[in-house]
Amino acid sequence: MRSDVDLGRFGLISGADLPSAHLAYETHGELDDDGGNCILLPSYYTGTSSSYEPWIGPGRLFDPAEWFIVAVNLFGNGVSTSPSNAHPDIAGAAFPEVDIADNVIAQHRLLTHLGVQRIRLIAGWSMGALQAYEWAARYPELVEAILPIAGAARCSPHNVVFLEGVKSALLADPAFRAGRYTAPPVQGLRAFGTVYAGWAYSQAFFREGMYRELGYASVDALVQGWATDHELEDANDLLAMLGTWQRADVGKHHPGGFAGAIGSITARAVVMPGSTDLYFPQADSEREVELLQHGELRPLVSDLGHLAGRPGIRAAETAQIMAAVRELLRD
Amino acid sequence: MRSDVDLGRFGLISGADLPSAHLAYETHGELDDDGGNCILLPSYYTGTSSSYEPWIGPGRLFDPAEWFIVAVNLFGNGVSTSPSNAHPDIAGAAFPEVDIADNVIAQHRLLTHLGVQRIRLIAGWSMGALQAYEWAARYPELVEAILPIAGAARCSPHNVVFLEGVKSALLADPAFRAGRYTAPPVQGLRAFGTVYAGWAYSQAFFREGMYRELGYASVDALVQGWATDHELEDANDLLAMLGTWQRADVGKHHPGGFAGAIGSITARAVVMPGSTDLYFPQADSEREVELLQHGELRPLVSDLGHLAGRPGIRAAETAQIMAAVRELLRD
Repeated sequence: MRSDVDLGRFGLISGADLPSAHLAYETHGELDDDGGNCILLPSYYTGTSSSYEPWIGPGRLFDPAEWFIVAVNLFGNGVSTSPSNAHPDIAGAAFPEVDIADNVIAQHRLLTHLGVQRIRLIAGWSMGALQAYEWAARYPELVEAILPIAGAARCSPHNVVFLEGVKSALLADPAFRAGRYTAPPVQGLRAFGTVYAGWAYSQAFFREGMYRELGYASVDALVQGWATDHELEDANDLLAMLGTWQRADVGKHHPGGFAGAIGSITARAVVMPGSTDLYFPQADSEREVELLQHGELRPLVSDLGHLAGRPGIRAAETAQIMAAVRELLRD
Repeated sequence: MRSDVDLGRFGLISGADLPSAHLAYETHGELDDDGGNCILLPSYYTGTSSSYEPWIGPGRLFDPAEWFIVAVNLFGNGVSTSPSNAHPDIAGAAFPEVDIADNVIAQHRLLTHLGVQRIRLIAGWSMGALQAYEWAARYPELVEAILPIAGAARCSPHNVVFLEGVKSALLADPAFRAGRYTAPPVQGLRAFGTVYAGWAYSQAFFREGMYRELGYASVDALVQGWATDHELEDANDLLAMLGTWQRADVGKHHPGGFAGAIGSITARAVVMPGSTDLYFPQADSEREVELLQHGELRPLVSDLGHLAGRPGIRAAETAQIMAAVRELLRD
């Protein structure tokens, strides 16, 4: 069941603020008496706290009988404070730039409010991984372990360019009206989804016809599916989160920069890039693991491209993640 | 110097035709008496016959003192018959679907007209490689060697999806008016270029800041450069060639299908995929080389992504291509 925590006027690192901000979240299980059994699952692009449900339950990655699981929604995702639901002063096109660090600071307030004393594990897919790194660098005393999946500690320059592409496809539709649309910019949203479809999987995924396994009868059906799915998204929400993603860099606010921030992380880490991910490539994770004190690179071997490891996508990938979770939670 | 060959009413494989079609081409050097010293260079996406100039000259890949070099323009590229220059019946949005095979059949007529008896080598970058394979499968008795660079024998399903993305970005601009624009759809063209920028290079290209070497001061300058460059393109021409590319398949009209068509090629081949190409991946070339009778896989080792091997881009890549050319022309 989803709850909200009221953050009041929430000051952002940029100096702007979110008036009457709130974080939406879901919890599963009970916090134990010493506040020490928390698992944090930060949401990903176009996902919500509910997207992690395939990971939660008896026999799954996280059993609520044992853990206090908090799944939390990114600012901008349409559930936490977002262009589509914000105070009129910052609604729509007026929504300020929110960084990954802002999300993590807000989540810290949420967990403090809930009585959490330490976080046993932060597991996050894609933008969830960006948050896991930021958490571990910002609150090293609280975070015991992280499991970044199909993500990184920052948005690489290539990733920025990929995102500029999907963004430009949306902005090519004048119905977007610089964010002041009165009806959805449907063609722009469809183009956004169409461009994204080429990046989401791997070349091998298409070569081997694996789209059929995901329920698409053909390549064309997959492209149409992505286009149609994105008609339902709010354009300003998509762009707010996209900006959060593009600006992500764990070293941005750290005196030691990128290397210093990662080097300051004391949490144990199993880092799981998708082995065929086109925009969070394994090579970036390799460099990040070298900077970690207690990090292990364990590629998620999969032909699914970026979508490897997305909650619920396929049992083979989930089994690899399960093994890492078991190890990280062992002691 | 550019010439044109008039093809009259040119029947396409689809059953449609191009009234008063022409192929534009450039020649360098002289055809020898037995018509046996021809090198053919078919043009690539947004390129022209002039794009191969960095390969031509004394001390370069092809010396006109020795070879009769024919560089020929793809239908749809704005120089040969194209939406932007065609007979009114097929101009603009009315331009019919032209396949790679149509181009190759037209080029065959051109070379016959010029008196060419055999082709010593067809070298082509990107869409030029698609044409090289089609030539070798369609006219095995004429083609002695091929050098497909950063290309393939067909457009893979992933490549189709990538192209759908750039296309959808253009079509999101209603100024395109289903191809009946009266002024260029500038936002759509800019979006087309922006989406394309993410695909053109490799992740490592951006990671290592190699864009500076190509004259871009920053990632943003690169993205802006791609957007601005594409403002100058004709939208219908871009889409005509994009369709030619998407439909490319050397096995399409061959009784043995894809494997049969490649297996029927008698030409010697050095196949040079870019080692970091995102949309003509090396893995596809590996499979194609296995089907060739006399093919050797020799990846073009480069961090430039798809742009590895584009004429004039960088000396290191050109040197690898030069070595392959020398071998293929040795006897």
